[in-house]
Amino acid sequence: MPVNYTPPTAESLLPVPGIALGTAASKIRNWDRDDVVLVVAEPRTVAAGVFTQNRFCAAPVIVCRQHLEAQRQRALDFRALIVNAGNANAGTGDAGMAAAQATCGKAAQLAHCAPEQVLAFSTGVIMEPLPVDRLIDGLPLARAAARQDGWFAAACAIMTTDTVPKGASRRVDVDGIDVTVTGIAKGAGMIHPDMATMLAFIATDAPIAGAALDAMTREIGDMSFNRATVDGDTSTNDSFVIAATGRARIAPILDRHDRRLAPIRRALEDVAIELAKAIVRDGEGATKFIAIRVERGKNVDECRRIAFGIAHSPLVKTAFFASDPNLGRIICAIGNAASRDLDPSAVSLWLEDVLVVDRGGRARSYTEAQGQRVMRQDEIAVRVDLGRGIAHATVWTCDFSHAYVSINADYRS
Amino acid sequence: MPVNYTPPTAESLLPVPGIALGTAASKIRNWDRDDVVLVVAEPRTVAAGVFTQNRFCAAPVIVCRQHLEAQRQRALDFRALIVNAGNANAGTGDAGMAAAQATCGKAAQLAHCAPEQVLAFSTGVIMEPLPVDRLIDGLPLARAAARQDGWFAAACAIMTTDTVPKGASRRVDVDGIDVTVTGIAKGAGMIHPDMATMLAFIATDAPIAGAALDAMTREIGDMSFNRATVDGDTSTNDSFVIAATGRARIAPILDRHDRRLAPIRRALEDVAIELAKAIVRDGEGATKFIAIRVERGKNVDECRRIAFGIAHSPLVKTAFFASDPNLGRIICAIGNAASRDLDPSAVSLWLEDVLVVDRGGRARSYTEAQGQRVMRQDEIAVRVDLGRGIAHATVWTCDFSHAYVSINADYRS
Repeated sequence: MPVNYTPPTAESLLPVPGIALGTAASKIRNWDRDDVVLVVAEPRTVAAGVFTQNRFCAAPVIVCRQHLEAQRQRALDFRALIVNAGNANAGTGDAGMAAAQATCGKAAQLAHCAPEQVLAFSTGVIMEPLPVDRLIDGLPLARAAARQDGWFAAACAIMTTDTVPKGASRRVDVDGIDVTVTGIAKGAGMIHPDMATMLAFIATDAPIAGAALDAMTREIGDMSFNRATVDGDTSTNDSFVIAATGRARIAPILDRHDRRLAPIRRALEDVAIELAKAIVRDGEGATKFIAIRVERGKNVDECRRIAFGIAHSPLVKTAFFASDPNLGRIICAIGNAASRDLDPSAVSLWLEDVLVVDRGGRARSYTEAQGQRVMRQDEIAVRVDLGRGIAHATVWTCDFSHAYVSINADYRS
Repeated sequence: MPVNYTPPTAESLLPVPGIALGTAASKIRNWDRDDVVLVVAEPRTVAAGVFTQNRFCAAPVIVCRQHLEAQRQRALDFRALIVNAGNANAGTGDAGMAAAQATCGKAAQLAHCAPEQVLAFSTGVIMEPLPVDRLIDGLPLARAAARQDGWFAAACAIMTTDTVPKGASRRVDVDGIDVTVTGIAKGAGMIHPDMATMLAFIATDAPIAGAALDAMTREIGDMSFNRATVDGDTSTNDSFVIAATGRARIAPILDRHDRRLAPIRRALEDVAIELAKAIVRDGEGATKFIAIRVERGKNVDECRRIAFGIAHSPLVKTAFFASDPNLGRIICAIGNAASRDLDPSAVSLWLEDVLVVDRGGRARSYTEAQGQRVMRQDEIAVRVDLGRGIAHATVWTCDFSHAYVSINADYRS
């Protein structure tokens, strides 16, 4: 069960005018459930995406990058997105590329568009051949099932080791017109997004031009998915796409400084942050949600490096699992991630409101009972003060439990 | 139980003329066992050391660095080493420094030398006050118990989460004279040495001059402890010291290119590598020993980064624990650790003699049965060919099991 996360329902995910979603069961793995999603977007929809920095990125990631580039270069609109769960189509070489292209070709046929107008996401086991024929056979069924209120079914179909579907919606008023933002995501393990996370798709009916959407997608990815980590393993398939259908009856937003973009951007950010936190809350084996803020650093990069250093330490994560205030492990993780010029005697550490380390040494006021009280909570805020600058960064992570080992020792069997 | 490691016995650890070791029970933690070691070295012994790069290094590490520097500057000999288990004396601020200095002062009194001639190691929980009075009270008992064949008792007294003591000896012939090398080490968790590992001490009776010993200690650390990782957490206390007593009746070795140094160096390296591997074999919760070699890289740094990237991935480690050839996780780890200019289509991967990835994609010859066969072994060689240079690097690691979580969730209780 995720930590303090109420999954969406069919009703809580608001339809986005211009977007229909259908699912089908293609038996990508040996299971009985829908595992393929076809998203169909109406003409003039614009999409932008950010993708994994893993050098062994999956075939669909390569195809997505090429197709988004073609959409920009040739002013093509975005018309369809295929997602399959159960197989990552990564480390699959030329056959994997051919499979990703064939699925885009089939979806293009169903959506009456060119293959370059289609994007594709895959998630699941790496380095196993994608059963592309079964996937393609499922697409007409998914097309036939597509409907505007198909978000919840889609959120369920893209799950792998997720224990709950993940989705969020917001509705904002722009000049008296309702604008909707709805998104879904999946991910629980191999989570340390680098540009984006394992499969997140958010749509809005706001009319946002491509260049403005590109920049905003990158920035929102940094504010949300790039702050999340479960196990520090950046996936081969991380993909985050925002689509804007333009169906809301407001004049086109061409410039990223357009004042009407502010509430829409806030709604997109809210949805992305809610999804990113949901991934951590549903992190494999998670029993606790931990927000780590590093402040007063030399620059943001230093703050992020130290925050992720704490978030990735197996010893810190097992101490959180045990509710054991073995807080020297946090000190150790800071010391490892810090650059040579950091002065340890300037560093302070808080757990929630409890001062644990006061400028380099154990705080005089700190007692084991205080640490114990905070460590028992299922949401914990860690704050590190580096005492030398004005930069700060926040990351979200979870603890490391027996269940993480079980899930990952058994995943393929 | 460690993976394929036969612990030393009192008989297998050869005395080193010039070195005596005694232990005592100082109740550093609430346990009934010897937990303090005093090593006494005869006059004219020379020592060299390498220490953790963690910015929050422990007080004894700071003291060791200062004292070794003083020994070099003022041509003082090394006369004593104190080790305590159960408390790391790290993150303890000024009080920790005072405690480390007080223990050196007491040892100096017992060894009839100056405090600068004493080194100190601590290992255990971070950020708890060292019970320095109990430690100091134990030192006269350890002094009284000191004997040349005290190596095994010392190896036992320095253990924390180790399941077995770790030690090794070699005897080599130099110009017809026997030269002995004996070493002990401890460590099982918080293991990703950066310059050295959590407490290793090796002594030889060879007469090696300080400058030659310094350089050699650094190089041997790189060949041994710096290749080991259990959980990727570099400790605050990593310390590796080699002492040379000069009691063997051969003429002093002043130069590192002296041909007589070769067999002694080989013996020191053998002992260091055996100890480093023993730490990994006894890694917390380890059920498998994995050697990862990355070859044909652009430079050694690239090879090391990728090898450690594989070794640190929780997903790779849990797949080894499960004997599951989910080898896409290795590909993913390579892709994360690689620099942007690495061409994935040049990369090949072997598990023992099984070709898994052939230039970027799953090898045609590879079958799940082949992978399964190798994954069932308790010692596994992983080989990655980057296909672009002549550099190579090897690291040793273990798998990630339920027991790791149990050990680290319960360590302080």
